[in-house]
Amino acid sequence: MIRRLPLYLRVLDELALEGETELISSHELGRRTGVGSALVRKDLAWFGEFGKQGVGYEVDFLRAELRKILNLDEEVSIALVGVGSLGMALSRYHLKRFREEGNFNLKLVALFDSDPAKIGSAVEGVPVYDLEKIEEVVPFLQVKMAIVTVPAESAQFVTDRLVRAGIKGILNFAPAKITAPENVQVASADLTLELQRLAYYLADH
Amino acid sequence: MIRRLPLYLRVLDELALEGETELISSHELGRRTGVGSALVRKDLAWFGEFGKQGVGYEVDFLRAELRKILNLDEEVSIALVGVGSLGMALSRYHLKRFREEGNFNLKLVALFDSDPAKIGSAVEGVPVYDLEKIEEVVPFLQVKMAIVTVPAESAQFVTDRLVRAGIKGILNFAPAKITAPENVQVASADLTLELQRLAYYLADH
Repeated sequence: MIRRLPLYLRVLDELALEGETELISSHELGRRTGVGSALVRKDLAWFGEFGKQGVGYEVDFLRAELRKILNLDEEVSIALVGVGSLGMALSRYHLKRFREEGNFNLKLVALFDSDPAKIGSAVEGVPVYDLEKIEEVVPFLQVKMAIVTVPAESAQFVTDRLVRAGIKGILNFAPAKITAPENVQVASADLTLELQRLAYYLADH
Repeated sequence: MIRRLPLYLRVLDELALEGETELISSHELGRRTGVGSALVRKDLAWFGEFGKQGVGYEVDFLRAELRKILNLDEEVSIALVGVGSLGMALSRYHLKRFREEGNFNLKLVALFDSDPAKIGSAVEGVPVYDLEKIEEVVPFLQVKMAIVTVPAESAQFVTDRLVRAGIKGILNFAPAKITAPENVQVASADLTLELQRLAYYLADH
């Protein structure tokens, strides 16, 4: 259910960008997200009474409520560790989308790397800090989540430091399993694993 | 269950790289993947009798079996559409890992873009084809899966062409919902959605 809330929010954000702030039906919200309308109603009903039967949901109101539920009603500062080609591209991509849409309230505020040639530089205004400074910079900038794009062999080491620095959510692009305490949420974004999962469906099972 | 098979395979691949081809216990396989050993045994038992109680699994044998199940016993050709900064970085990243590890049997063989400045060029030996040629190139190179890294507004258009060209699996990085026929598997790899999901856990619920 939590997995689908950002999908709903994305549609509401798009509507708001288009200046559409009136009502949206569960049917339309379902159509735009690829979720059945009954499931849309069920998901949203779980969190409160957001709509009126036969009328729909007020776009602005539902948008604000979903943001609150997802802790996105205030901007959340994030960091990225590992400014290699993937980390650099993801940073630029995120910053570009944030500049153009600006409505998803996740702000990339710090980059970390261990390469002296990169430390002190910046990617579109976001500074690259020394990896050694994670425990200082993260609390100072109130960074809450991190994207990890370091090589597999450094992933756990970096994770441990992020946890010590107070990070509560990690999106891991490194092709390695990382472990964190229970109060830290870890999600994997390993390209190869996702492709291998897709490959399973190539044959008829 | 399918989601965890590539995790097991990754450990077996690592063991094979290290020259370790003897036995592995469900306990050790679980430890290395972060999955409970009972669940490891249950997952694997679902697909066949791969191990011996109290002894474990033969690394090479289990590895070959998992590859068969995941359709990775033969190399699967993949394409990437949208050679922007993210597409470029993901291509390089994938090619680098393939060169270094070479054991995940997913081979990037074609890139597509609509920019005349990019068409005809190559990224580390992989050619960039004209987007208009998808329906010719995909069947010719027997490409089975595609990574989509185009802007949101082109994602459905590109998906429709990939489907017509015979693609059976799509990993979508575009921040847009795409729809495909039932026999085509679609997975989303939207960075922002994943971060928003993580943000939910920032508060104590």
